[in-house]
Amino acid sequence: MRKVCVIGAASTKYGRFDLTARELLSDACSAALKDSRVDPKRIDGNFIGNAFSIAEKQGHLGPLVMTTLGIPEAPAYTIETACASGGSAFREAYVNIAGGFADVMLASGVERVSQLDTITATSYFAYGSDYTYEGGNGCSFPGLYAAMARTYFQKFGATEEDLAAIAVKNHENGALNPKAHIQKRITVEDVMKSMMVASPLKLYDACPFSDGAAAVVLATEEVAKQLGVEPVYVMGSARAGSIAALHERADMASIPSTTIAGEKAMKQAKVTPKDVNLLEVHDCFTIAEAMALEDLGFLKRGEGAKAAAQGITRRDGRIPTNASGGLKAKGHPVGATGIGQIVELREQLLGKAGARQVKNARVALAHNVGATGGSCAVHVLGV
Amino acid sequence: MRKVCVIGAASTKYGRFDLTARELLSDACSAALKDSRVDPKRIDGNFIGNAFSIAEKQGHLGPLVMTTLGIPEAPAYTIETACASGGSAFREAYVNIAGGFADVMLASGVERVSQLDTITATSYFAYGSDYTYEGGNGCSFPGLYAAMARTYFQKFGATEEDLAAIAVKNHENGALNPKAHIQKRITVEDVMKSMMVASPLKLYDACPFSDGAAAVVLATEEVAKQLGVEPVYVMGSARAGSIAALHERADMASIPSTTIAGEKAMKQAKVTPKDVNLLEVHDCFTIAEAMALEDLGFLKRGEGAKAAAQGITRRDGRIPTNASGGLKAKGHPVGATGIGQIVELREQLLGKAGARQVKNARVALAHNVGATGGSCAVHVLGV
Repeated sequence: MRKVCVIGAASTKYGRFDLTARELLSDACSAALKDSRVDPKRIDGNFIGNAFSIAEKQGHLGPLVMTTLGIPEAPAYTIETACASGGSAFREAYVNIAGGFADVMLASGVERVSQLDTITATSYFAYGSDYTYEGGNGCSFPGLYAAMARTYFQKFGATEEDLAAIAVKNHENGALNPKAHIQKRITVEDVMKSMMVASPLKLYDACPFSDGAAAVVLATEEVAKQLGVEPVYVMGSARAGSIAALHERADMASIPSTTIAGEKAMKQAKVTPKDVNLLEVHDCFTIAEAMALEDLGFLKRGEGAKAAAQGITRRDGRIPTNASGGLKAKGHPVGATGIGQIVELREQLLGKAGARQVKNARVALAHNVGATGGSCAVHVLGV
Repeated sequence: MRKVCVIGAASTKYGRFDLTARELLSDACSAALKDSRVDPKRIDGNFIGNAFSIAEKQGHLGPLVMTTLGIPEAPAYTIETACASGGSAFREAYVNIAGGFADVMLASGVERVSQLDTITATSYFAYGSDYTYEGGNGCSFPGLYAAMARTYFQKFGATEEDLAAIAVKNHENGALNPKAHIQKRITVEDVMKSMMVASPLKLYDACPFSDGAAAVVLATEEVAKQLGVEPVYVMGSARAGSIAALHERADMASIPSTTIAGEKAMKQAKVTPKDVNLLEVHDCFTIAEAMALEDLGFLKRGEGAKAAAQGITRRDGRIPTNASGGLKAKGHPVGATGIGQIVELREQLLGKAGARQVKNARVALAHNVGATGGSCAVHVLGV
């Protein structure tokens, strides 16, 4: 298999925009191409993470964005694995290059949901659940993650304040990220006083509905050298799944697909958690960050929830986690989220993350989850 | 690159069913696994062509079907490139095996639209167009393909009767296909008298809205030998795109992505049109079959429309085309269509197509189009 690098990356700001998914996506792809300095004519294709563009009455995003980029002949695909769509798109772009089917690829993602009211948006998101048993019976994602949190609390004795500290930490990071949806510091008290959404999860335990797009250019090592760009290597790449419906799983306080994909990606990268200098993990709710750190093997069972309060996962901690602000503060434009993680980690690995730079960032891990873990993508990047 | 074979295949009947996409897809995948005799535990993933499952309030089909199949850990992806979603899903399963990332994969597709009334279904389909310029202004696919037909008529002097003969031929084939949505012979007069949909295209020039699912199992040559199944080889595989909006193209009587993908796939397979014994082409409307035969290089410009009337594309003709009945009669369950073509061609290549068997079928080509050609997938199969 050939070595694959990320040679360019860009992201729109995350937030609420009066722009269509098509426009946001075109902006991000165009900026990533510019950043990479590659001639667009060399692009062999584009994998696009997206889940809900049909809510704008526009499917088939590929030809639209490729036409805008001036390369309509290059094939493009929409990939959907719920909230892991971006990570899955990145994976397939990687596979195409590593396997010798392409030399230069775009991997991108986009979502536009701010035109929907909160109830409609929550309903759309619930389509990513096992709708027959979950979403369709009123158990949308806040409820599902609340059930995971309750199980976690019962098993490990964690508290709402522990989770609140995760939100506080991620908001602190997001406040330093000019692309973040929410650039505002909060306190544990703010979280505790915020509206209860699905007990024990409150408004500030949840990520926002964000619009946004992100794109990266992947290429062979040879192309990176030709262009003279500083490569960030894809050291490991893996995808896995879990039983779709939460109630059918043996344990509701962990996500099996995270463990499987994490182990595979780190094995390929020949690293262990000790070698990883920073992570972007899928913190759609605070409890999700706690579980991710455990499922990935960075912390023991029951340690994840308290890690933020203990300073372990701060930018200057032992396991810097979500230095971007995470889904929690940076935002969660579904299809873009997994690609946005790569954009952030590349900046960190190249030492260009400004005020939120993590020191000695040489190896980084991105973790992107669909639904309650029905889909997961993990990537290890390094310089 | 490793050799890749199709080692199992199955399809539901196409038609109108009181079953969800999830159920249809699970049925097809399960039957394909059984047909292949492979242990489901060996499945490395599933690429699922689907465009509209969100109309059933259910996205994220992958984990649902993998859970049903008893292999929830294996990653699954929904792939959307409008009506070429199935062909695109097959392509990526092929890439994963040929590139060494997997040994055994499912490629599948599904659509369920019969719960929608005709106007709603037409609107959903139009989301695959450039909605800003086309669908959103009332130019849905019948109108777009009508514009292509008008252009074709003006350039080449073809007639409505020529197109009607394509419908008659495909219904004749469909009448022999127990899986076809419409198993009814029609006459040129029937077509000419049918309701005008978008001049010059009438109801019988158009494919039906179908529900249905199809699935194939792909594997390395080694796995095929281990299992002792008769392999059908993927000799060539290619994807390409075209400018999204029809009015921006230089020519409205051809589809550039068909030509690009066709040339690439045949080059990889080391065949020319003369070596291909039968084709399944994307005849969403009769005019589409005419253009496909020309764009793929099987007939000269202007010859495609008259080929059915001349007997060239009949099962016993020089270029047997859509022996299954095609989208026109077999039906068009969007995400399943491209996979269903592979199911048909495998049966033909193994000499198991019963009453509709094409003689001396050794090399076959599948052609699957998204929208008016914004996406295209072409595959060459052989025994």
